[in-house]
Amino acid sequence: MTHVSFIPLRPDVPSESPHERRDAARNRERLLSAARELVDEFGAEALTMDALACKAKVGKGTVFRRFGSRAGLMMTLLSDSESEFQRGFMFGPPPLGPGAPPRDRLVAFGEGRIYFILENGDLWKAAGASTRNRFEAPPTALAHRHVEMLLREAGIPDPWVMAMALIAALDPDRIVNDVRVHGISPKRLTDSWGELVRRLVPSA
Amino acid sequence: MTHVSFIPLRPDVPSESPHERRDAARNRERLLSAARELVDEFGAEALTMDALACKAKVGKGTVFRRFGSRAGLMMTLLSDSESEFQRGFMFGPPPLGPGAPPRDRLVAFGEGRIYFILENGDLWKAAGASTRNRFEAPPTALAHRHVEMLLREAGIPDPWVMAMALIAALDPDRIVNDVRVHGISPKRLTDSWGELVRRLVPSA
Repeated sequence: MTHVSFIPLRPDVPSESPHERRDAARNRERLLSAARELVDEFGAEALTMDALACKAKVGKGTVFRRFGSRAGLMMTLLSDSESEFQRGFMFGPPPLGPGAPPRDRLVAFGEGRIYFILENGDLWKAAGASTRNRFEAPPTALAHRHVEMLLREAGIPDPWVMAMALIAALDPDRIVNDVRVHGISPKRLTDSWGELVRRLVPSA
Repeated sequence: MTHVSFIPLRPDVPSESPHERRDAARNRERLLSAARELVDEFGAEALTMDALACKAKVGKGTVFRRFGSRAGLMMTLLSDSESEFQRGFMFGPPPLGPGAPPRDRLVAFGEGRIYFILENGDLWKAAGASTRNRFEAPPTALAHRHVEMLLREAGIPDPWVMAMALIAALDPDRIVNDVRVHGISPKRLTDSWGELVRRLVPSA
């Protein structure tokens, strides 16, 4: 009943010669790093296809061919950050990565997730990620599967459903709303997450 | 920092004579019970302003004057159900209402909320309640305040933030998604909620 699909996070690059592929990859990286500079400087709302074309000194058509749309560009930026965070919890050093008890890994996962969301909140919003496929987007599904695996390891009953509840507590819209609308500090969010996990999962 | 506002859930009725007011209230109830019959029979998606006017044998203009729009009508139906649920946890018999330990009241609250959501899921969706003011709508704010109060009573640290996490776990979109997309039974949802609360809140 769980459908976790590993849809590639980046659009496919059509088959080209090795030389063309290298060029395309270089161009893509150049465009993405120009986009990241624009976001860092002016915020995600200010990142338009025009502004990116101008900043990267390419035609607007090139930007559209590469990313399809503004939302596509935002999604690509977000996916790059997601991939980094995913590498962290799947293969990185403990306690986020393998090697620590599930309780500690869960605490580290939530803390990392909260900071990841707060760093990428604008991007998230601009990509429309909060309304499209909130529950079924590949990063959410992967995060859910990770939390489910840790809860199972810790002996929590029905870990699939419990993981859904915990992932909901880390919902990006909620985290951003708590911080921006209610002025809750990130530390209060991570402390409360730690409290929740430590009470839920007995220490080994 | 918490802003809980008791915005009236129903649109104001303009000032009229007692006789006119009685008539208006009667008409309103007649329209709402016709609307409920349509929803029960054909689902919320099938409830249109035309269908309601036809069923209640009034002009379409009357339906629009009373509810403003289709979403307004859905909101009114939803508010009526919400009010009933709210009376239950604020003034009803224990363990949902006052008189039971906070731990038991929390368990009963989540169970009641999950069934309420599943009964009203279509209405919720049709009212656009899931996208508009997801976090700040009066019913959500009231539910949050209730859970916060119980967590404080139970001695949980930072009950405001913890209540936000628990309310997220009861998010209507998530509950409906778990049941409809993943085929999770309501019983698994309420069992998992009970498990979460019993581990979070020590027994008195």
